[in-house]
Amino acid sequence: MRLFSGEIYKNRRDQLKKQITGGQILIFGNNEAPMNYKANTYRFRQDSNFLYYFGINMPGLVGLIDPGSDRDLIFGHELTLDDIIWEGPVEPLSSLAEKVGISLTLPLDKLPETLRKAGVHYLPPYRGDRQIYIRETLGIQIPPSVALIRAVVAQRSVKAPEELAEMAQAVNITRDMHLAAMRATRPGRKEYEVVAEILKTLKSHNAELSYPVIFSVNGQTLHNHYHGNEMQAGRLLLNDSGAENEMGYAGDITRTFPVSGRFTTRQKEIYEIVLKMETASIAALRPGVAYRQVHLDANRILLEGLSALGLVSGDLDTLVQEGVGGLFMPHGLGHSIGLDVHDMEDLGEQYVGYREGLERSTQLGLKSLRLAKELETGNVLTVEPGCYFIPELIQKYRSEGIFTQYVNYTRLEDYLDFGGIRIEDNVAITADSFKILGDPIPKTVAEVEKIMTEY
Amino acid sequence: MRLFSGEIYKNRRDQLKKQITGGQILIFGNNEAPMNYKANTYRFRQDSNFLYYFGINMPGLVGLIDPGSDRDLIFGHELTLDDIIWEGPVEPLSSLAEKVGISLTLPLDKLPETLRKAGVHYLPPYRGDRQIYIRETLGIQIPPSVALIRAVVAQRSVKAPEELAEMAQAVNITRDMHLAAMRATRPGRKEYEVVAEILKTLKSHNAELSYPVIFSVNGQTLHNHYHGNEMQAGRLLLNDSGAENEMGYAGDITRTFPVSGRFTTRQKEIYEIVLKMETASIAALRPGVAYRQVHLDANRILLEGLSALGLVSGDLDTLVQEGVGGLFMPHGLGHSIGLDVHDMEDLGEQYVGYREGLERSTQLGLKSLRLAKELETGNVLTVEPGCYFIPELIQKYRSEGIFTQYVNYTRLEDYLDFGGIRIEDNVAITADSFKILGDPIPKTVAEVEKIMTEY
Repeated sequence: MRLFSGEIYKNRRDQLKKQITGGQILIFGNNEAPMNYKANTYRFRQDSNFLYYFGINMPGLVGLIDPGSDRDLIFGHELTLDDIIWEGPVEPLSSLAEKVGISLTLPLDKLPETLRKAGVHYLPPYRGDRQIYIRETLGIQIPPSVALIRAVVAQRSVKAPEELAEMAQAVNITRDMHLAAMRATRPGRKEYEVVAEILKTLKSHNAELSYPVIFSVNGQTLHNHYHGNEMQAGRLLLNDSGAENEMGYAGDITRTFPVSGRFTTRQKEIYEIVLKMETASIAALRPGVAYRQVHLDANRILLEGLSALGLVSGDLDTLVQEGVGGLFMPHGLGHSIGLDVHDMEDLGEQYVGYREGLERSTQLGLKSLRLAKELETGNVLTVEPGCYFIPELIQKYRSEGIFTQYVNYTRLEDYLDFGGIRIEDNVAITADSFKILGDPIPKTVAEVEKIMTEY
Repeated sequence: MRLFSGEIYKNRRDQLKKQITGGQILIFGNNEAPMNYKANTYRFRQDSNFLYYFGINMPGLVGLIDPGSDRDLIFGHELTLDDIIWEGPVEPLSSLAEKVGISLTLPLDKLPETLRKAGVHYLPPYRGDRQIYIRETLGIQIPPSVALIRAVVAQRSVKAPEELAEMAQAVNITRDMHLAAMRATRPGRKEYEVVAEILKTLKSHNAELSYPVIFSVNGQTLHNHYHGNEMQAGRLLLNDSGAENEMGYAGDITRTFPVSGRFTTRQKEIYEIVLKMETASIAALRPGVAYRQVHLDANRILLEGLSALGLVSGDLDTLVQEGVGGLFMPHGLGHSIGLDVHDMEDLGEQYVGYREGLERSTQLGLKSLRLAKELETGNVLTVEPGCYFIPELIQKYRSEGIFTQYVNYTRLEDYLDFGGIRIEDNVAITADSFKILGDPIPKTVAEVEKIMTEY
């Protein structure tokens, strides 16, 4: 496994200690996750908080950080001969621990007696086995620590240069997946045949998926994981897929392209709106800008474009304020990304993407905005506007008389077979501006058509 | 999703009802499994028992079978508009339930009040979230039901013709994966580049992995999931990988081949021993034969072969009885296979592979035999003999003076860089004999060398 220097992990832990006074800090690594029985497991994914503070990519570990002492600990177990026969010889835990700046490891069953349960700080567990361990094995009765959550979010939200380099690499692997998909798509093939090419490209980089592949001619379904459709000329294909690199950092890219390799006029009209939403949103990024405002400004571009096509009408400010954009883009403009594709979602979006005084909206679209607060240098986020024609949603709104004064439902009937478009990049906030991570991926109509027709 | 006819599921449930008197039977479907936070999930895998009795491949369901009534129930929830926006329009649960012979579905939160907790039968949970649900949401205090385990094992152990057809299909997808791997292997490539071809082939069939791929030049590590080695001429490659088809049935095939495409003499000598173990074991299969005996007879062939090479010496009966074979094959000859690659391992191997009066050995090798009992018509099992030279194990035995009277440790030194060989097929027990599932996969030295050199 690849690791940063031990100094980096030690500094991260030391910084955390300054924020937490009193009580020990427990950072739980993940265990193997059973699929259809205990020993048939999913691929191992380490907990991201453990990766951040302790780096070691192995199951069954718990890290202990003691703000009152200089001594950080890893609890785990050394391999037995049976482990070596079945799993192979690996570097001993004690030696791995040294590489992340930890001089002492103890068997996991020593944790209960080492722990001072009274003031322990731990993060919210998202797997059942971990919940049982915390309550039953460790006997911890107090809830997860909000102080610890806040401290971890503050730290992990600002990516260091070595992290940005890893994230750019994850995006570049993701880029290859998207190029392969564009080249492999053609009328008559099944979606899963192209997903096969995406996975081949991913694995050729010895990488893993950062989230389940969305690859569908039904792009209007936001998280569509069905890949059984035949791709037909005239349809659009939405590919939202990303690589997790060897260090655990996520890429998250979306491109939408015509199955035939050439956009129709109608497709091009909507595509150009979404592309303008994306490029304008990115151009607005810099420290201090509230991402909620960028989301609203993107909505305004969407509504302006749809208005020009005669699909909506009315005063733009009113349309934005009433949330009419949510009918066409019922999701947020983007989210933080890092070791998790939705970075630190396990810690709670109210801490990661919001702050005190900034409440979550209940409006369709805005209610799904995961990142609303002011941006800081070192943040990395996705910018992923979209425009979708969701028949079920349109029919429901029409039949309930919602937005009838703004939306031309009759003209919208022509778009019920359109599908959806989303365009997404991963962007870092710099000292005074922004930087799109990774090498460019075809995005304009001309770039997309070129790569799809040049083979 | 593909389903058998409703009659098949109904008959399976009716048959189960006859075995269980008093108390309701709960069959828990699986929930989504969180990877690095709750909403970023691994691919959904339905529980195999739920698949067997209720068929529906969706998360969040519980089946209730009431032996005292004609009424079987599925608890779950119908999709909301939000679900449709994010996950897409799918067939309603009530309509799916009808297809598997169930006329009534209820919301999941009605389960606690419908359940008669006193005499409830349920199977051992293998995921943490399910354990929490059983104890805390349902308030069930009694342990899993051994009567239910026995009844389910009896039923699922005998595969019906429609199941055998699915299993043959899973093996044929697996066959394509193995052919692709043989063709893609060549000196200088990385293991993961070939794994990429395996996954591409798998996905081109719209299938999933039935277990994590083992693909390694270090075949002596039995469950080696590291794919970062460069493949070098002179080494052997062990590929143990299998597809799970759309209905959930598993294939589990192993082939071992030379990276260069040509076996060396020394490799061929060991390969022929393992091949003889495999073909002789398969030829011995028929109803009534104890698989423990087949395992021991395979060990005898192994020791006979190693004796001819001067690696072991002594009376063959004694060598077998003392367990000398375990040094070279520290695993069992095979296991049941079906909806799970180790079929019903969640229910306990003592029920699936053993019976009263047949105790598990503590000898290295025999102690890992998952299937020991007498075979029945309709059983499906793997036959997967191997021969490995595990440096750590050999050094430990030698330094502890184990088997020094039987093993020529000096001559064995020449084999410490050999690696390991395993050959595995999936075999059904017929009325009077056996049938290897799926189309033939290159297995003899000549067949393997032909496919590896013909491109």
